[in-house]
Amino acid sequence: MQAIQITEFGGPEVLRTTEVGEPRPSGDEVLIHVDRCGVNYADTHQAENTYLTEAELPLTPGGEVIGHTPDGRRVAALVGTGGYAEQAAANPNQVFDVPDGVDDVSALALLIQGTTAWVLLRKSIRMEPGESVVVHAAAGGVGSIAVQLAKVFGAGRVIATASSEEKRDLALQLGADAAVDSRADDMTTALIEANEGRPVDAVLDMTGGRVTDESLRALAPFGRLAFYGMASREAPRPVELRNLMRHSTGVSGMWLAHAFTLPGNVVHRAMAELFELVRKGTVRTINGGVYPLSEADRAHEDLRARRTTGKLALDPSR
Amino acid sequence: MQAIQITEFGGPEVLRTTEVGEPRPSGDEVLIHVDRCGVNYADTHQAENTYLTEAELPLTPGGEVIGHTPDGRRVAALVGTGGYAEQAAANPNQVFDVPDGVDDVSALALLIQGTTAWVLLRKSIRMEPGESVVVHAAAGGVGSIAVQLAKVFGAGRVIATASSEEKRDLALQLGADAAVDSRADDMTTALIEANEGRPVDAVLDMTGGRVTDESLRALAPFGRLAFYGMASREAPRPVELRNLMRHSTGVSGMWLAHAFTLPGNVVHRAMAELFELVRKGTVRTINGGVYPLSEADRAHEDLRARRTTGKLALDPSR
Repeated sequence: MQAIQITEFGGPEVLRTTEVGEPRPSGDEVLIHVDRCGVNYADTHQAENTYLTEAELPLTPGGEVIGHTPDGRRVAALVGTGGYAEQAAANPNQVFDVPDGVDDVSALALLIQGTTAWVLLRKSIRMEPGESVVVHAAAGGVGSIAVQLAKVFGAGRVIATASSEEKRDLALQLGADAAVDSRADDMTTALIEANEGRPVDAVLDMTGGRVTDESLRALAPFGRLAFYGMASREAPRPVELRNLMRHSTGVSGMWLAHAFTLPGNVVHRAMAELFELVRKGTVRTINGGVYPLSEADRAHEDLRARRTTGKLALDPSR
Repeated sequence: MQAIQITEFGGPEVLRTTEVGEPRPSGDEVLIHVDRCGVNYADTHQAENTYLTEAELPLTPGGEVIGHTPDGRRVAALVGTGGYAEQAAANPNQVFDVPDGVDDVSALALLIQGTTAWVLLRKSIRMEPGESVVVHAAAGGVGSIAVQLAKVFGAGRVIATASSEEKRDLALQLGADAAVDSRADDMTTALIEANEGRPVDAVLDMTGGRVTDESLRALAPFGRLAFYGMASREAPRPVELRNLMRHSTGVSGMWLAHAFTLPGNVVHRAMAELFELVRKGTVRTINGGVYPLSEADRAHEDLRARRTTGKLALDPSR
């Protein structure tokens, strides 16, 4: 079958299509004939081996797919790695039947990015109704869902940041109450101004560096920042606990893999809620484009250059 | 009137009784004839000027009192400073009528320390039923209430730490499921063992230094540590956000003064709930001893040496 295979770590240029053997599902793993595979920031880290887990070569990246099982179920599945391929194998606990009325790219938009937004709001910042929530990269895969979900969960005010006028317009269309340029000279001041002069209750951040440092300083007492990625490739400053005490603020990290270890089947609950919100039209997914598998490198280039909005997917038949 | 007045910053030895002028309440402030004043760790920081806010000399320390107003109300009040005295003035928003059936030292035990425990559980770690909660210094003022409140709020397992056999026994009597020596060589391992081999969901910490560092490493995914004091006078290591992400954990700071800025009258709600729990006998306060005002230095010495349990108070008539 055709798949992307990486034989040396690096940027988009290491993503090349190759003929590889088909996956052999072990134990109760589910075989999936892939219709679309999702593209995530995490994949760009896997390709250069800067992800939270160490990668091994040769590597077929890609953590999520949608497709069909041999017995005809239409499923979306988390696969860890190996998604950029015509076939993939998945742990049955990470396979979700996709309801009618939810298209392929929408299902992929919910699978990693939608559940990430859900878990960030419910389990990391534990948002309360009425709170103000900043969503950085609000036109992106997680951000575009997080803006809408925060509203569904009763946020008092959602403040979006994005790097272009078009992306900020999209965030406002999705329900954000204010939109801030993510290249603002002083993010602390920009966020407080966008919150009508008040510090903010919560921040969802996957940027890192200065944006994280300055966002922390925009938090109100009992405000929380959730850190779930470092798209800038720059680490934020380490945090002194005494400073957190001085301002009664909090900071947490989030890696979706851990959400599967939570009691109460949290990710399945999140998926069920998200599928329903999309079916009802309450939450809109953003199709950021389907690239041929053979152009996976271009998808990574566009994602890293912040040229994209919403969910990117690959078509393994092309 | 008699009061403690500090004219140079330092340890317990700087606390001396002096004749000073009576407070003159300004605006709508409430004058209180003090029956007892509460002693807190924060006072020891105020006396040496290592608290979160800068202190000014001459200083009468003491943040909380119970007593009577000129019109006969029996009230407990937060006063910022000036509590170690025969009279004090308080902002009406920080004055609480004390119900019958709640004695003086119990009311003081709830005022700063009980509300601190309540706010830590509800607003800092946002505890969920079934979670495991570590309470450091569990025989102390905040700890002894936190152990009981965590149970009232549905904690699955409460793990107490304390520095002596007697204190650990007290914590177990108050409802802790396990008690750990706070001088354990390796707090990470000790906490996980006390949680039956599993990492823990939440930690309330006012110790600092190594205890904080090692407690953070005992957290389960989506576990949170709340930091509300530094009794060891040693700062914990700064926290890297990437590490929080790698483990999906969170850390927050808490300073009670900020809780008054929260919407929904949080501290008054906490006090009402705590008074009711004490009146019903569901929560027990621990009277750690009433010292004459003239022996405030001894109260501070005992507190700093970790010789005390529960709530310490001063009697300004002696």
